[in-house]
Amino acid sequence: MQGSFHGRTFGALSTTRSKPIHKLDCPAFDWPVAPFPRYKYPLNENACENHLEDKRCLEKVADIIQRRRDGGRPVAGVLVEPIQSEGGDHEASPEFFQCLQQICKQSGVAFIVDEVQTGCGPTGKMWCHEHFQLTSPPDIVTFSKKMLTGGYFSLPEFRPAQGYRVFNTWMGDPGKLILLERVLKVIMQENLLATVGCTGLKLKEGLHQLENEFPNHINSVRGRGTFLAYNAPTTELRDKINNNLKKKGVLGGICGENAIRLRPALIFQPKHAEIYLDALRKTLKDL
Amino acid sequence: MQGSFHGRTFGALSTTRSKPIHKLDCPAFDWPVAPFPRYKYPLNENACENHLEDKRCLEKVADIIQRRRDGGRPVAGVLVEPIQSEGGDHEASPEFFQCLQQICKQSGVAFIVDEVQTGCGPTGKMWCHEHFQLTSPPDIVTFSKKMLTGGYFSLPEFRPAQGYRVFNTWMGDPGKLILLERVLKVIMQENLLATVGCTGLKLKEGLHQLENEFPNHINSVRGRGTFLAYNAPTTELRDKINNNLKKKGVLGGICGENAIRLRPALIFQPKHAEIYLDALRKTLKDL
Repeated sequence: MQGSFHGRTFGALSTTRSKPIHKLDCPAFDWPVAPFPRYKYPLNENACENHLEDKRCLEKVADIIQRRRDGGRPVAGVLVEPIQSEGGDHEASPEFFQCLQQICKQSGVAFIVDEVQTGCGPTGKMWCHEHFQLTSPPDIVTFSKKMLTGGYFSLPEFRPAQGYRVFNTWMGDPGKLILLERVLKVIMQENLLATVGCTGLKLKEGLHQLENEFPNHINSVRGRGTFLAYNAPTTELRDKINNNLKKKGVLGGICGENAIRLRPALIFQPKHAEIYLDALRKTLKDL
Repeated sequence: MQGSFHGRTFGALSTTRSKPIHKLDCPAFDWPVAPFPRYKYPLNENACENHLEDKRCLEKVADIIQRRRDGGRPVAGVLVEPIQSEGGDHEASPEFFQCLQQICKQSGVAFIVDEVQTGCGPTGKMWCHEHFQLTSPPDIVTFSKKMLTGGYFSLPEFRPAQGYRVFNTWMGDPGKLILLERVLKVIMQENLLATVGCTGLKLKEGLHQLENEFPNHINSVRGRGTFLAYNAPTTELRDKINNNLKKKGVLGGICGENAIRLRPALIFQPKHAEIYLDALRKTLKDL
């Protein structure tokens, strides 16, 4: 997908389309790229336009799959982030993902969801694609980061027939799995997914308020759980806001051309959200 | 190099030429492959033939580099294992590696040594390429396995000018580095490289004795430190020997068409070598 980031090894990098610097000097496979929706915000005021944007992207996916098949180089899989992160925190609707899966099913193409950034809770569900009410699970789900080790789940039919065809030295890295087991236990014991949901609502509500108060400085608040983002009108202003936040003790992230992204840990609570919103309000006032 | 194994991600796999099963169904880059020496044993009785084998392979390397440059697709790097492991434990002489590095230097091609299997002590030196008396260090040395985490060393000029161009989530994986620090400490405190050298000599001497006693069953004893191997005349006999060793409690490995490889831990001592040699003698006697 245009704007996607899937990693830096040569195969993953061939599917990555966020920043040119990532791909410079690296060989790449000739694999096709489709558009991923770019929504207008607020969503409830732009429903029709965003629906047409979904349609435009989906038609292009179907068209590429058809043309590649006709050309004798059929598409093996569609790789998609539930929220395009590195590329600018672009979200897409449940309907988009439902239709995308449908197209994949009809074409015999693997539907692969890259949950490296979104997986393990930050959207308020264990996996972000749980928000999409898919009619069946994705064919393959990849994970890393919060999961402490890289890996994937897949449907049984994606398991190679021969043993050891998917193999590496550490095979799941048992040492990391011991740590992960404890992480998962804490998530359940402390009910952290509910915390993320609760904190996320408060955080998003506060951000909506701020974009109303400072419409010339921030806009397009979006995201799920605490996996939220907003835009500044220009890259310069975005960088200024992020730097001024840092001076107030807030370590934040940027992505895409003009987005500021929020990636708090799962233990981020409503009281922490208040601290963040206060710091952001002061930052925006001082501009 | 023909017979090499460098990994399973798409870039690494494009340079891998050991078994067809590894590459099946996977896209690959159109990168050239050169022969790696295949020696006759014992080395001291085949010095002249093996020297010619070095020459044949080196001429082919130089020829490929020249032809690719003429064709407008210059070679960026030569990737080589100090001992071809997965491909059948094929070793090459210090002179081969010295000349290979020389060819790379003269052509402006990176000389990359893959020490994933050989690194961190099993050949009796920390890095197997230390056996080769190279006039200068390799441009890049890759490691993994015994080093507990994957990575590489490189000369400063191979560092990208821009920050974060070589980057991943864990950046060296500090948790693994804590474990590695302890591993390195134990290697030094217990003088394990000297142990490997000592055990290796005893093991190799014993294997030479056995290939003389059972010339119809094993041959071509080779390797450095305890990173040793020998061949059986056929794949069937090789598998039989390895399976019968297992029945005697020896967990061994196989590689290539007809090789049995030894990969004991660094704490393997001369007394353990005796146990192995006894088990192997009994196994060969029973055939």
